[in-house]
Amino acid sequence: MGKLYVVGIGPGGLDYMTIKAVKAIEESDIVVGYTKYIEMIKPLLDGKKVYSTGMMGEEARCQEALRLTSEGTVAVVSTGDAGIYGMAGLILEMKKDEEVEVIPGVTASSSAGSIVGAPLMHDNCNISLSDLMTPYEDIKKRVKLAAEGDFIISLYNPKSKGRPHYLREAIDIIKEYRNEDTPVAIVKHALREGQEATVCTIGTFDDSIVDMMTMVIIGNTKSYIKDGLFITPRGYKLENK
Amino acid sequence: MGKLYVVGIGPGGLDYMTIKAVKAIEESDIVVGYTKYIEMIKPLLDGKKVYSTGMMGEEARCQEALRLTSEGTVAVVSTGDAGIYGMAGLILEMKKDEEVEVIPGVTASSSAGSIVGAPLMHDNCNISLSDLMTPYEDIKKRVKLAAEGDFIISLYNPKSKGRPHYLREAIDIIKEYRNEDTPVAIVKHALREGQEATVCTIGTFDDSIVDMMTMVIIGNTKSYIKDGLFITPRGYKLENK
Repeated sequence: MGKLYVVGIGPGGLDYMTIKAVKAIEESDIVVGYTKYIEMIKPLLDGKKVYSTGMMGEEARCQEALRLTSEGTVAVVSTGDAGIYGMAGLILEMKKDEEVEVIPGVTASSSAGSIVGAPLMHDNCNISLSDLMTPYEDIKKRVKLAAEGDFIISLYNPKSKGRPHYLREAIDIIKEYRNEDTPVAIVKHALREGQEATVCTIGTFDDSIVDMMTMVIIGNTKSYIKDGLFITPRGYKLENK
Repeated sequence: MGKLYVVGIGPGGLDYMTIKAVKAIEESDIVVGYTKYIEMIKPLLDGKKVYSTGMMGEEARCQEALRLTSEGTVAVVSTGDAGIYGMAGLILEMKKDEEVEVIPGVTASSSAGSIVGAPLMHDNCNISLSDLMTPYEDIKKRVKLAAEGDFIISLYNPKSKGRPHYLREAIDIIKEYRNEDTPVAIVKHALREGQEATVCTIGTFDDSIVDMMTMVIIGNTKSYIKDGLFITPRGYKLENK
């Protein structure tokens, strides 16, 4: 019976994978993942059996990945960190006696943050606005408490066609706890083909350029913009800008 | 004038660095960092000028790193993600016209999470218990709001000699919003030499084995332990365990 690796491939560009992630894929006979993620790591897939499916088949994909360990070593790939909104949870929930190793990756908020400055330097949180599996009321409550707690807030899955107004509403909630000039980063395809990044303020924020592939990061009360860079000071007492 | 890379080296083991991080260090003439971090990447440092200092000299170290760009390409290294409690913020705060590129890494909560299961699969936050630069009252308020918001909570810098009781107090605050059987992970030196990990519950949590080099992760209300693994279900509606 082969081992199963759950591999976080990071933002998508091969250079931002860990060496361990590359090794795990190289060592695997079979690679399983969402079609778009499989595309991103194509140069590593020569001679391997690939099992890719559309976004909605996650449970079936995990089931298949676990089954495939009877045929060899398997890598299930997720973008970002496989352990943050990735495939690690479902695989571990469904696994029986298969040997599973989770290989962490650079999560999407870290990738997005790195290209706009240093927004995540103090206490920070990741919130997904997707209500596919979480009631919207719970999401809004969480956004409010995070804003009140002065967290830097990274919004995953900020917008989709079925819920076009959630992001606007989240920003309105956060605005009650932030000045108008609080920095906001809008980052699309961080560190992969098609990268686009904008830094604006919560007062001028326009959600029209945001889609499901975007990460939105909102600063804490000490965050500021310096020459276009979004910076959160690490210490509240530090005044050396 | 050389470029300055701020490099997140991940947890410490060379295999968990991104390829980009390795390339940036290889490309650099001078490497700057805290002594212990420099040790971790020693195999990459042949023939390079190394500037290492103790933990407290961070501002001086950044100043020196920026100055050294006049002599060549410089890499400033941080463990984890350089943009999360790392060196990216201070460098960008202090920089003038130097060219700086931040290279993200696997942050400590992702590393710790990966070895105990999949604790961070839903909305999660990082909180540092260090009060060196943040008032303790603010930290406690943030812990309370994060617990109330049902975030999975990763505690960075959970304990030091100067504040031995903060962790105990933080856990007591979180307990008001969690059942006794909520999983807690205590992870020391994740994915590097000396790794130790324990999964217990918030009811049986004992802070005596925790030190400054430890990461403590507390689950949300849906987290559970399965065969010793700490799992947070990704979706609240998902019942397939």
